[in-house]
Amino acid sequence: MGVDIVARVSESVFGELIVKKLINRPGDEVREMLDGMALAYPGIVRKIPEWNTLVRLEAPIFGKVALVSGGGSGHEPAHAGYVGRGMLTAACCGEVFTSPPVPQILAAIKAVDGGEGTLLIIKNYSGDVMNFRTAAQMARSSGIKIEWVIVNDDVAIDKPELRRGISGTVCVHKCAGAKAEEGATLEEVKAVAQKVIVNVRSMGCALTSCIVPRVGINSFDLGSDEMELGTGIHGERGVKRVKMMTADGVADTLTDACVKDLRLQSGDEVAVLAQGNGGTPFMEKFIFYRQVHRNLMEKGVKIYTSWIGEFMSSLEMAGASVTLLKLDEELKRLLTAPSETMAIKQPGPILF
Amino acid sequence: MGVDIVARVSESVFGELIVKKLINRPGDEVREMLDGMALAYPGIVRKIPEWNTLVRLEAPIFGKVALVSGGGSGHEPAHAGYVGRGMLTAACCGEVFTSPPVPQILAAIKAVDGGEGTLLIIKNYSGDVMNFRTAAQMARSSGIKIEWVIVNDDVAIDKPELRRGISGTVCVHKCAGAKAEEGATLEEVKAVAQKVIVNVRSMGCALTSCIVPRVGINSFDLGSDEMELGTGIHGERGVKRVKMMTADGVADTLTDACVKDLRLQSGDEVAVLAQGNGGTPFMEKFIFYRQVHRNLMEKGVKIYTSWIGEFMSSLEMAGASVTLLKLDEELKRLLTAPSETMAIKQPGPILF
Repeated sequence: MGVDIVARVSESVFGELIVKKLINRPGDEVREMLDGMALAYPGIVRKIPEWNTLVRLEAPIFGKVALVSGGGSGHEPAHAGYVGRGMLTAACCGEVFTSPPVPQILAAIKAVDGGEGTLLIIKNYSGDVMNFRTAAQMARSSGIKIEWVIVNDDVAIDKPELRRGISGTVCVHKCAGAKAEEGATLEEVKAVAQKVIVNVRSMGCALTSCIVPRVGINSFDLGSDEMELGTGIHGERGVKRVKMMTADGVADTLTDACVKDLRLQSGDEVAVLAQGNGGTPFMEKFIFYRQVHRNLMEKGVKIYTSWIGEFMSSLEMAGASVTLLKLDEELKRLLTAPSETMAIKQPGPILF
Repeated sequence: MGVDIVARVSESVFGELIVKKLINRPGDEVREMLDGMALAYPGIVRKIPEWNTLVRLEAPIFGKVALVSGGGSGHEPAHAGYVGRGMLTAACCGEVFTSPPVPQILAAIKAVDGGEGTLLIIKNYSGDVMNFRTAAQMARSSGIKIEWVIVNDDVAIDKPELRRGISGTVCVHKCAGAKAEEGATLEEVKAVAQKVIVNVRSMGCALTSCIVPRVGINSFDLGSDEMELGTGIHGERGVKRVKMMTADGVADTLTDACVKDLRLQSGDEVAVLAQGNGGTPFMEKFIFYRQVHRNLMEKGVKIYTSWIGEFMSSLEMAGASVTLLKLDEELKRLLTAPSETMAIKQPGPILF
């Protein structure tokens, strides 16, 4: 029988936990990752010395609205990979799957606000919402114009107010970032972010769990013939455990859920993000995308642009998710407007 | 104890092997992946109907030298992801880790040759070398000007004639492709390819094995506290099995091996490719890159450009590799010359 075991953690002869990852000391991984990013892309980003925060090299940019996002790490390239011209001005990176603290967010706002105000893009998790809103209120009381939006694109959860913010957040970064780059006011940038939030939906699945470095063991156990549907991005279980499905079956399930929730009709136009979870090879991402594409074509939904990659991952988790953004002319323009970040460069194809 | 099991294969209640991958029927994965690529990037590539071959949308391009490469699949984005303006004209994709057959290669040459001749870029594996050379001889006898180069950048093997072609091949695609785009002759394009081959070295490691879909079990077994150094790209074992190392230790080992073999001196200038193996999350790639960068800085070696990504992967394998290309002014220009492929777009940052 073909069972094979990939154990990613073990104990050394000294009884110490060995986490089978390319890291050094568990607990140092976020700082060292951001050091690596700053070394690799010195023309785009710089790291604030006292925090695990990356800011755009030129920040603060006077006369333009700033965009600050962030959250726990382990979702790379979110959010640090989206800092740069036409997207985020700063990304606050918490420990793995942990919200950044209030002082970190406040310091980021103060580092990048260029006098025209700052928009915070928050994913709908209690810790993120609380910390970002508290930092916003403190920044506001020190005289900075500030607004925020909360992204809740995950259709795996029924009640919209409980929906988590997942990969659709990247569409908010891109469109609101492009609007800010055009010189729009804080209110105008916020309105674009809200328009994206109203029109974007996502759903994911997992074939494996993942290991938080400091924890050292898988976040959940999963049978060798099982998968999770409706996963979030923090290594948690999904809303439903099912037997392994084909790639086409997975693509149809996730796509149908987004189409239904968005009430897409034949003739509607969308952007598609077809994504891995961090440990998904390219081959599987393209087999998955193939059926997402065919599914939408069969429904008469037009695909304006397709992004294939890892947009908001969960460490080394295997699996996939789909994000659909319903487009109007303004969103089409903003989504394809020039950007220069580590992960998303426009114009041109997007694949990573 | 923190051992956790990620079993990626199992048997269904019908006794059928379940491969825990986002695929449909094992054996269909290459065709379906290429379908997905062609659907996602219709402005860049098209698929030849009768073969698993992607060609540049505009091919054949009269008046320019064509570049044909390929090999087994499972190394994505190599090679199909490098088809497009400024890089490959065609990529012949064999079954997973299996050379494409002679008729497939011959059909690709005939589909893209624009009258100025075709350069074949072959990785040093006996199957690839035999099939590509046989196809070349058949194309030549039908009147097509043809040349080939053989890439052997893997320093894990001592004897240069036995060295395998791995990720350094992507530098050959980029530089020779840029030279062809400039309108150079077949001989000039081949000379650039040879210059890259002389100046590029790579070495890789593996933290996990990987599963060929049709086989259904891991290519090798690896203890939960072990890793392989000097791996190839076909899911085979490395030249040495060692206890798990830190990311910094791995980065130093691989970088030092390439630096030594290239006899790099303080003041030399290089391009760095810091890569995952297909299932390596971004976080680990950047922690790995950080030390590759610091290692080179300590030696006084200048980094002209850094590419972080998955350039020539092994399905879902975890691990990393480093490629160093020693540069002169011509190679600097060609490496950063405009290109528009799925995976490599220049100018700008490269991350995927």
